[in-house]
Amino acid sequence: MKPIGYVHRVSKEEDIKDRSLVSRIVINEDLVDALEGIEDFSHLFVVFYMHEVTEEEKRTLKVHPRGRTDLPLLGAFATRTALRPNPIGLTLVELLECKNNVLVVRGLDAFDGTPVLDLKPADSRDIAANVRVPWWLELLEKENRARGFSKH
Amino acid sequence: MKPIGYVHRVSKEEDIKDRSLVSRIVINEDLVDALEGIEDFSHLFVVFYMHEVTEEEKRTLKVHPRGRTDLPLLGAFATRTALRPNPIGLTLVELLECKNNVLVVRGLDAFDGTPVLDLKPADSRDIAANVRVPWWLELLEKENRARGFSKH
Repeated sequence: MKPIGYVHRVSKEEDIKDRSLVSRIVINEDLVDALEGIEDFSHLFVVFYMHEVTEEEKRTLKVHPRGRTDLPLLGAFATRTALRPNPIGLTLVELLECKNNVLVVRGLDAFDGTPVLDLKPADSRDIAANVRVPWWLELLEKENRARGFSKH
Repeated sequence: MKPIGYVHRVSKEEDIKDRSLVSRIVINEDLVDALEGIEDFSHLFVVFYMHEVTEEEKRTLKVHPRGRTDLPLLGAFATRTALRPNPIGLTLVELLECKNNVLVVRGLDAFDGTPVLDLKPADSRDIAANVRVPWWLELLEKENRARGFSKH
């Protein structure tokens, strides 16, 4: 697999966990035809490769969510940690604009320079009724809301 | 990237687009620790590699949705076609059971033998309010409902 483009952020110091922030995805110019019609979607899943994860980190298998030792030790596949066998990132973003080979999106939690592997327009099949999550995630989400982090 | 496991289906003849069908994901035994706690989620995103896509198909860039020439010719990134530069599949599934290294899921549209790259538990950040999709996708979804294909 090869990158289809890269994430560009205004500053390397941005808090990527703040989902209200806007970033750009610059798609390789030879792939611009593959963007035709994407602007008719409001939301995309961005699939990216977390290239800074080390070989040792890929073998971690268990983590405390967000490094919090007050929360249970869980399997990497039960969390969205970057420390996973294949360090693929997946984030639902709001598509604000697509002009030529540049997408402007809100809510992408990827660092400046991150290689992007794929873009998937979000549709009704990506939404399930009655999604159930564990207590530790509900706690983290509640804390995030208290910190004023918007969802989208 | 290496597969973390493979999709197993009862029969190679199953209609993978029928999202009511159940399939299994058998995770490599050395990664079983990474599944700890996953059973507390009701839904997962499965990231898989559509290994049967040819090099020529990866260079397609534009497709008619589901091959339908009565619908517009669109960029691969504006559809969920398998014919894309990196043939990554992404599907939200219902997690019915996780026992040792075997997950039983409903709604996975991947063929028997498909390599799985990652599992991501679904949470509220994967759901956006006011998702907007183009008219051609609304038409296809309406037709699917008429054929009796359930969503989840």
